[in-house]
Parts: sequence; C-alpha cells; structure tokens
Amino acid sequence: MRVSVIGGASVSEATYRRAREVGRLLGERGHEVVCGGRGGVMEAVCRGARETGGHTIGILPGADRAAANRYVETPIATGMGNARNALVVLNGDAVIAIDGSTGTLSELGLALDYGRPVAGLDTHDIDGVEAVDAPDAAVEYVEAALR
Amino acid sequence: MRVSVIGGASVSEATYRRAREVGRLLGERGHEVVCGGRGGVMEAVCRGARETGGHTIGILPGADRAAANRYVETPIATGMGNARNALVVLNGDAVIAIDGSTGTLSELGLALDYGRPVAGLDTHDIDGVEAVDAPDAAVEYVEAALR
Amino acid sequence: MRVSVIGGASVSEATYRRAREVGRLLGERGHEVVCGGRGGVMEAVCRGARETGGHTIGILPGADRAAANRYVETPIATGMGNARNALVVLNGDAVIAIDGSTGTLSELGLALDYGRPVAGLDTHDIDGVEAVDAPDAAVEYVEAALR
Amino acid sequence: MRVSVIGGASVSEATYRRAREVGRLLGERGHEVVCGGRGGVMEAVCRGARETGGHTIGILPGADRAAANRYVETPIATGMGNARNALVVLNGDAVIAIDGSTGTLSELGLALDYGRPVAGLDTHDIDGVEAVDAPDAAVEYVEAALR
Repeated sequence: MRVSVIGGASVSEATYRRAREVGRLLGERGHEVVCGGRGGVMEAVCRGARETGGHTIGILPGADRAAANRYVETPIATGMGNARNALVVLNGDAVIAIDGSTGTLSELGLALDYGRPVAGLDTHDIDGVEAVDAPDAAVEYVEAALR
Repeated sequence: MRVSVIGGASVSEATYRRAREVGRLLGERGHEVVCGGRGGVMEAVCRGARETGGHTIGILPGADRAAANRYVETPIATGMGNARNALVVLNGDAVIAIDGSTGTLSELGLALDYGRPVAGLDTHDIDGVEAVDAPDAAVEYVEAALR
Repeated sequence: MRVSVIGGASVSEATYRRAREVGRLLGERGHEVVCGGRGGVMEAVCRGARETGGHTIGILPGADRAAANRYVETPIATGMGNARNALVVLNGDAVIAIDGSTGTLSELGLALDYGRPVAGLDTHDIDGVEAVDAPDAAVEYVEAALR
Repeated sequence: MRVSVIGGASVSEATYRRAREVGRLLGERGHEVVCGGRGGVMEAVCRGARETGGHTIGILPGADRAAANRYVETPIATGMGNARNALVVLNGDAVIAIDGSTGTLSELGLALDYGRPVAGLDTHDIDGVEAVDAPDAAVEYVEAALR
C-alpha cells in the first residue's frame, strides 16, 4: 500500500528520530511513502524508508524538482503552493501525521474529508484521528485499517 | 475588503440564520464575500450579503458554474475538487468560520498557514482561531484585525 | 453569458486597441469577461469592458490579488502558476483569442478540449478555432455559437 | 533525466508501436518517463519503458490511482482534471510529443512556456517544436538539448 506521512518541516531531534523510524517500518513492510517532499518530518520519513528499501514520493509546492529533500526518489513538482496539500493526502491509502503545525492541520482535514484512515503521533487532537504513542503503533493502525 | 466565509454544507436552521446574519453585516459594511459556492453556510452567507448589496464569489470544486447556490453572483468553476479549498481562503483578506466539519478544518489550517486573521463561530477549537459568540463579533474581529 | 478572452501579455498598440474594442463590445452586450488578469490583451479587454459597464474577472497565476491589472473588478488569486490557464478557459462559455504566444496556445488547446466555441483574431492558426478579422466578428461568432 | 511524453489517448497501431519504441529507448538509456497515465501513447510509452527497466510516472486527471494504465509504476492522482496537464510537462526536463489532439496541444503550449525542449513525432506543427521522423531521432534530440 501507499502511506502519506505528514508533519512539520522543522522539528526537534526526537521527532526526527520517530519520523525516521516510521519510515523504516513502512519501507521494511513494503509500503510506499508519499509526503510533501521537504524537510523535517518529510525528510526523516523518506530517509528511514530508503534505509529499508522503500520507495519515496515527494509532492512539492514549488515548480522545481530539485527542492526535494535528498531521500525523495520520485519528486513531483506542482508549482501550486499549498493547494498541493490536497494531492499529498489524496495519494496515500492511509495517513500518518507526526507533529506539525497549520499545514499539517489542513492535511488532516483533507485526509478525513477523503475518508482516509489517519494515525496521529504527537500531533493535533482531532476527532477521527487515532492517537498513537509510538512509530510501530502508527504503522500497525494504518495496516489494520486497510486490511 | 474581502472576507472568506467557510463552514458546513449542511447545517441546522439556527446555524443558517447566523451565517445569513454574518452575510448581511458584511454586505452592509461594503465587504465582498468569498466562499465555496455550495449549500449550508455558503448559501446562507451569500444570501445575507446579497440582501444588503454585497458582492458574492463562489469558488466551486466542480467544473460547472451552474452548481453554485443561487446567491452567488460570481461563480468560479475549478474542476479541482478539494484542492480548491486553498483558493477559497487565499482569496479573502480574513476568514470567518461557522460550524463545519473536515473540509472546514482543512480551510482553517490553510487560512492560518497563509497568515489570515480568523474568527470562529461554533466551529473547531484551534489555536489561532478567535472564538466569538455572535455574527457581529465575528465581523468586528476581522475588521479590527485588518485595520 | 461569460466570455474568456485570452492573448498576449505584452502587445503592440494596434493589438491593444483591438482587444479594448472586443471588451467594449462584450460589455455593451451585457457579457461578463474572464481573463488571466494581467497586462496586454488581458488589460485591454478589461478596460474596454469596464468602459461599457461590463463585469471583469481576472484569474491570476500568483497568490496576490493586487497583481491584477486595474480594470479587473473581481480578481481571483490562485498561486498555481500556469496550471491556472485551465481555469481561465473553463470559466467562459466561449473563448476569444487575440494574438498571443505559448500561454495562449495552451489555453486554445484546453478551450477546444472543453468543447468551447473559439474565435481567433490574429492568433495561432489551429483547427477548430474560427479565424475572424475584426472585433465585432469575434463577438458575433461566439454569440451565434452559444445561441 | 526525466522526459515527459505526451500524445493521444486513443491511437492507431502504428502510432502505438512508435510510442512504445520511444519508451524502450528512454528506458534503456536510463531516463525516467512521465506522462498523463492513461491509454494510447501514454500506455505505449510506459510499456516500452518498463520493457527496458525504465521508471514510469503517470500524473492522472482523476482522484483514483487505479485509473492508471498497467505500465505506470508510480501513479499520481490529482483530481484536477485538465489542470493536471501543466504538471505533466512541468515534471519533465524535456518533452516528446507523439500524435495527439487538443489536450496534447495544450501541453505543447505549456511545455514551450516553461522553456522545455520539445521533439514532435507526427504531431502539431508548432514553432519551437522540433519535428522528427522516428523514435530514435526524438530521443536523440531531447538528449542533445539537455546536454
């Protein structure tokens, strides 16, 4: 399956480590990762996924593919700014949110609107988002939801 | 100025009345209204604005302008689905949210991301959204924020 | 009805005059004008339309409404760059093309793809685009096509 | 490099064979293919690329990844209709057009607008599009243009 991972572009080391662990778990279970292609959680999850052989897709706000973080294998430029947030969540079968601010909040709203199952790790407390407390619980939740 | 009004597409009579009152106040103070162009809060606010001579813009998810509610003077078709939510909030100088579910949540996130002042009436409780308890308080808040 | 007018952002005086005349004719016959909101043909057609009381809509590539030319009454910011070209033609019932380069060519392709009637004045020679030799012939062609 | 291949969704057998040959050549020279993800030229080029180990990306008009042709490895759903044409050409370093109708015409306009080198095989005769007469000439042209 394909999992959209959303979260802050600028995060603490602890959050970075957790996001990277989410990426590792997704990659080793054979799932693709889609994200917004930039730094912070987006970089960490791509890095982790690549370490275990997962394919990583970054859907960028700008028009230049070169703006993707180095762990994105398939960058997609949109030149659409924040309107691309809709594409980030539309392209996953499920969503994992980690930390994050207003951009992540918009993606959570869109994910729920599209009916995607969503696991949340240290993120906004929103009805419909399953709060989990560790990377493996996030991955298990989305796997179970899609089974 | 131009105010984006966001909220539920299917609402109670009480919410409809409040949204229509927000529209009346915006129209009589000479503000344009921009919304998602459909039913519920979107219809009510356009209806109120038209009653006091305000201009109403509806930015629609579909490709057909005819899908706009009857109180939209200037419908804009996008054919972009939910990705159009970004355009709804981008096109206001400030935002008033009334009620609403996941679509509204995504617009609140985007509005805050764009740095728009946001007043919230019976809507999601989000950091950065000024909770108000009546239509006039909502309009006064966004006017003061932009002064 | 609503007519999309497309064409070059930087044009000769003669082309500017013709585009302004197209705008005047559309306005006096009660048609709305939609365009890309910038200079050249887009400015001229809005200017003409306003001179005869027509409503003008400009769908902009950028995120800032203030980038619209001064004759646009209802600017719509998109922040989507050239992907907004699709919205410019989608929002007219018919299209008039005047002069123009590669951006206009993309809009001609999209207009034909959407099945819009298209009149062309000094523009690309494309199958399906009705070549006309004067502003009034352009307006008459699109009126007849939609009758 | 990454090459956008654009063209008709419903084509003759001869055109299908040529598009598949373009895909084979791109794949064996290590280039990624990006296309609109559907049938005809889009299917043929992905099929050819996969036969020689190339990576294929399909940027779809609809919201459902499952609508991609079977030779697309990385489908990207947009739900944006024809506005996605801009993304198809934006995501290639160069463009090869094969056959095609109005949608292809819009993509040619956008490709030239973005300054992409474009080779055309049995397609619209447009200034700035290098007309070539065989698959290998198309691939050689875009390779030389980006060298």
